[in-house]
Amino acid sequence: MRAAIIPAGNWGTALAVPLSDNGHTVRLWRRTPDFAPEFNRTRENRTHLPGVVLPPGVTAAATVEEALAAADLVVLAPASAGLREICRAVAAHLPPTALVLSVTKGLEPETLRRMSQVITEEIPGVAKRLAVLSGPNFAIEVARGLPATSVVAAPDLAVARVWQDALSTLRFRVYTSTDPVGVEIGGALKNVIAIGVGISDGLGMGQNARAGLITRGIAEMTRLGLAMGANPRTFAGLSGLGDLVLTCTGDLSRNRQAGLAIGRGKTLAQFLAETGVVVEGVPAARAAWQLAQRHGVDMPITEQIYAVLYQGKDPRLATRDLMSRLRTHEYEESGGPPLMGS
Amino acid sequence: MRAAIIPAGNWGTALAVPLSDNGHTVRLWRRTPDFAPEFNRTRENRTHLPGVVLPPGVTAAATVEEALAAADLVVLAPASAGLREICRAVAAHLPPTALVLSVTKGLEPETLRRMSQVITEEIPGVAKRLAVLSGPNFAIEVARGLPATSVVAAPDLAVARVWQDALSTLRFRVYTSTDPVGVEIGGALKNVIAIGVGISDGLGMGQNARAGLITRGIAEMTRLGLAMGANPRTFAGLSGLGDLVLTCTGDLSRNRQAGLAIGRGKTLAQFLAETGVVVEGVPAARAAWQLAQRHGVDMPITEQIYAVLYQGKDPRLATRDLMSRLRTHEYEESGGPPLMGS
Repeated sequence: MRAAIIPAGNWGTALAVPLSDNGHTVRLWRRTPDFAPEFNRTRENRTHLPGVVLPPGVTAAATVEEALAAADLVVLAPASAGLREICRAVAAHLPPTALVLSVTKGLEPETLRRMSQVITEEIPGVAKRLAVLSGPNFAIEVARGLPATSVVAAPDLAVARVWQDALSTLRFRVYTSTDPVGVEIGGALKNVIAIGVGISDGLGMGQNARAGLITRGIAEMTRLGLAMGANPRTFAGLSGLGDLVLTCTGDLSRNRQAGLAIGRGKTLAQFLAETGVVVEGVPAARAAWQLAQRHGVDMPITEQIYAVLYQGKDPRLATRDLMSRLRTHEYEESGGPPLMGS
Repeated sequence: MRAAIIPAGNWGTALAVPLSDNGHTVRLWRRTPDFAPEFNRTRENRTHLPGVVLPPGVTAAATVEEALAAADLVVLAPASAGLREICRAVAAHLPPTALVLSVTKGLEPETLRRMSQVITEEIPGVAKRLAVLSGPNFAIEVARGLPATSVVAAPDLAVARVWQDALSTLRFRVYTSTDPVGVEIGGALKNVIAIGVGISDGLGMGQNARAGLITRGIAEMTRLGLAMGANPRTFAGLSGLGDLVLTCTGDLSRNRQAGLAIGRGKTLAQFLAETGVVVEGVPAARAAWQLAQRHGVDMPITEQIYAVLYQGKDPRLATRDLMSRLRTHEYEESGGPPLMGS
């Protein structure tokens, strides 16, 4: 089959490897005018995946239209902030039977829309052909062929299975799911907990505290997911727990670094000013907190992280407040019914 | 209330801190004749928790009988191999209304009994007064008052709540559960997956692989637990996932070290001969594999770890076999029904 990847950031480019390993032709596109000629000369995405030479079946297209021509499989891989714009560029040229895969993690600020919701708003009629991919996946490891696992989810299992077949290799093991809502929420909210784990580590709270935060963090993400129509079991899987573990314990992510700095006494504003980086978990913390209020879900860890990031709360006080909550049964929280997976 | 901790290893001694913080009198006992006089002079368990001076309400008793006299709360904290013998020593002197808490993690080799099953076999009539404690808890961090979370489980919630009240402090947050089976299985089997994660890291498989192993490891532990009568939700909690994350990503445990050595080309026999240490996950891998067969549960990760440890299988081949299994839906495995939490 013919696959298009739009745009070719680090994760999009990495996904060209399993697609190509399975015999699919892959066309990459990026807005940068130099990208196509340089990639087609070197087969390397020097900006986003330096050091990885892609297989011969992967080429770069000069325009979105060229990339999408006769495509059977279309991977949408922009940063979350660029998704609406990319969708508008894609909508005009998307073949009417092409399957679309969203691999972007995040929630749209203000609207709190999931990425697949943004796509269905911007590309009429795409809903039945749309799937999402999420899991514990550092792009560079997948590009280098190290073993990895992930989840592809669509309301229609048959659609998920097409992507499973297209992407699965001996090195990249893809599971199917019919719960795109749960898969997307896990991918969007993991960075919030990663900031919290960074704060805890920055305060010197230790490894017991870290393991507790990860576990109770998944529990509250599960509660929110359930209220939003997700299957709670999804959060115990690769796109929930798996991605959270990777983000909280893998190489220093920006989210973790921001948390560490705050735990050691800096304010968020100081950290952002000094580093100039974008920390995805910061807007995600606000979105998570807004969703918790909208759906009436108890999210004590998110609440404290939000208070530290946006209200200047002392992280030590936040920790104390978290530890001194009402004593509870592990499956339930005060004020709510017992929830599966929480 | 009066609490007794038998014997005072590192975890038992650490638990004296929250008990004492809550105003309970605590008596420690160890078999070593020098222990009581030395502890009562220094209030430090120099063998098992050096550097931690315990509160004044903690004393050491010279005999099991003295430790148990008029005790309301009895913590049993031996290594798993010593549990039957400790139970026999305790049975003769246990006050008839004392509540008993098992904090030992493991399964008895050959019989594959859980620790609470061993206790009920050896101490007649104790079943209704028995609870188990397990969670992501490095003893030294709890002893030093760093924040930690744990789970106390008993078939009777009222019994679990007594222990929750006795142990909970602003630094040690204890949740209740009515699923001792699930709590004990999680604590016993986490070391198996930790060996697998060590092997993966030793082979240089990367961080995606590690996160995938942890997640799919919990999934197969959940399947086994369900077959053994546990509540699958327990495995998503602190005694399952939480303890697994701590063991797989915290300081180098012996299990992880053994796995790393094997991943880098040593045999298990070489590692054990060179280090002379006891690696709990090695017998646990055999026990888990036997339980999987007994209950007809698909445990592909455990199966491969067992093959590497006991049948000399090449770890690279084990990895390949794990990655090349039938493509599946995330909630189910080939040949089995969809299982909650798997």
